[in-house]
Amino acid sequence: MDTDLKCNRLTCRRPLSNKAVVTTCSHIFCIECANELFNASRLCPACETTLAEPDDVVLCSLQPTNDYKTSVLSGLTPSTILEICSRAISFWQYQIHQESSFQQAVVRNVNDKNAQLQKQLENVVREANGELIILNNKKAELERDVELERRKVRELQDASREQNKEYLKLKV
Amino acid sequence: MDTDLKCNRLTCRRPLSNKAVVTTCSHIFCIECANELFNASRLCPACETTLAEPDDVVLCSLQPTNDYKTSVLSGLTPSTILEICSRAISFWQYQIHQESSFQQAVVRNVNDKNAQLQKQLENVVREANGELIILNNKKAELERDVELERRKVRELQDASREQNKEYLKLKV
Amino acid sequence: MDTDLKCNRLTCRRPLSNKAVVTTCSHIFCIECANELFNASRLCPACETTLAEPDDVVLCSLQPTNDYKTSVLSGLTPSTILEICSRAISFWQYQIHQESSFQQAVVRNVNDKNAQLQKQLENVVREANGELIILNNKKAELERDVELERRKVRELQDASREQNKEYLKLKV
Amino acid sequence: MDTDLKCNRLTCRRPLSNKAVVTTCSHIFCIECANELFNASRLCPACETTLAEPDDVVLCSLQPTNDYKTSVLSGLTPSTILEICSRAISFWQYQIHQESSFQQAVVRNVNDKNAQLQKQLENVVREANGELIILNNKKAELERDVELERRKVRELQDASREQNKEYLKLKV
Repeated sequence: MDTDLKCNRLTCRRPLSNKAVVTTCSHIFCIECANELFNASRLCPACETTLAEPDDVVLCSLQPTNDYKTSVLSGLTPSTILEICSRAISFWQYQIHQESSFQQAVVRNVNDKNAQLQKQLENVVREANGELIILNNKKAELERDVELERRKVRELQDASREQNKEYLKLKV
Repeated sequence: MDTDLKCNRLTCRRPLSNKAVVTTCSHIFCIECANELFNASRLCPACETTLAEPDDVVLCSLQPTNDYKTSVLSGLTPSTILEICSRAISFWQYQIHQESSFQQAVVRNVNDKNAQLQKQLENVVREANGELIILNNKKAELERDVELERRKVRELQDASREQNKEYLKLKV
Repeated sequence: MDTDLKCNRLTCRRPLSNKAVVTTCSHIFCIECANELFNASRLCPACETTLAEPDDVVLCSLQPTNDYKTSVLSGLTPSTILEICSRAISFWQYQIHQESSFQQAVVRNVNDKNAQLQKQLENVVREANGELIILNNKKAELERDVELERRKVRELQDASREQNKEYLKLKV
Repeated sequence: MDTDLKCNRLTCRRPLSNKAVVTTCSHIFCIECANELFNASRLCPACETTLAEPDDVVLCSLQPTNDYKTSVLSGLTPSTILEICSRAISFWQYQIHQESSFQQAVVRNVNDKNAQLQKQLENVVREANGELIILNNKKAELERDVELERRKVRELQDASREQNKEYLKLKV
């Protein structure tokens, strides 16, 4: 049920399951992206916060050992332990919220694309129908023209046959 | 950042912000749906678990008062408090996970619809183009026919004119 | 390792292991004391806070059922869950701190009593020694007196014997 | 209200407020004791567990910075966060429980000493009273003896006076 967090670099979004780099501005990156991005500058690639302090960008293991789990907060007072716990849960909640916003943006995006496609389909159908009507009209017109010319040919042939008959009669 | 949970009845999915009904099988419903569903039977409408015990279906306030927050777990030992805390966080995580699965199903659904529309568009374009090619071929053929007949008419007219000339010469 | 909390009424201090009554001012009482005290007035018997609201004094089960543990905070957001968790841990910490202060007061008290006893012992020894010295002196004095008187008796007896001899000599 | 934990070396028991060393066997030591003890061997000085792994003995800051508090558990899933939180609260509870047991041992110790002093006081009083009674009896006996002897002296003096009178009468 525990969903993997994803690298917060939009061009990466790889699921994170072993080691990752977290920032105090609540972002998380895969090791490869972190190496590339934080060597270039100390700005968060997700929100552009300046990350100047050493604890601002921290390497963390997403599957800590039992010994680590036992000792990491040992010795602290319950109020400090719960404060740390709240901050970590907030980090996770923020990531889940970002991911959910991302999914919703994807849905909106795909829905927009769908509406656009639907419209495009309607346009194509309308335009094609328009062209087909014009072509069919043209075709009907041409068929009428062909018929007309053929009739003219027949009339001219009939007239020519009559004329020929008159000519032969006269010659005789 | 705290996302509202949604009524787990698929036909409702109303965001829950004030009062709600939770089950020990980790589902949550709005008051209206709960009244309607749990009066009819003691089966969870989301997962069909039998909810026979009184604590299996519980009305809860999603915005508890400070006094309630102070006293609800007071007196319990830290281990019991943290166990309750873990169970409640798991409940929330399960809901978020379900919602995320739902969103992913929506994305898949919309993407499927998108692919279908794309295919439909391509089919329409291909069919329309096919019909247009046939019609254009037919039109070209008809135009050739018209031209052919018109040439015949012109030739017949020319022949008729020559015949007429011969006839008049003969007559004279 | 989970230490039972104790009824906060100083004259009771019974370990609480099943049901108890908690107040929003962070005190806890056994059912018997709570019935007796809160029927009389709505003041906390430990700190005299006015407890006017219904949620100010709450009956709680110290060994909740699994169903209760599952459903009591279900539906709440992680931040609310952790806030409730923090408040309950603070309650427990306050009780442990009070108990520790009580134990330290007991130690101080018993140490004071010890110092007093030590002093009393020294006084008793000194006084007894004083009286013994006086009595021993008195005894020595009396022994001297007895010796003195006995010597006198012996001297008088000797003198009497001499006198008697003289008297008999004279008489003869 | 947050009580400082104490160095678990019984000869130290210094309150820990800044940096400390924790072990996976749930013990905590001040830096000075840890340096001295863990350089000599990898056995826990409190419970003699072997601490062979690197994470078994960890230096921790008891007053972590905000950046540390924000990033130390970031990226982990809620279930891992709560597991770590539970372990840390258990550590603290164990320490509090040990300290409470220590305080109770102190109370028992001081109460034993108290009972012993009480008994010693009673013995001293009884013995002193015994001696005083003996001495007083002796004194009374001596006083009676003195009185007896004095009476004898007086009787002897009286007798001597009578004898003397007889002697003078006879002489005359």
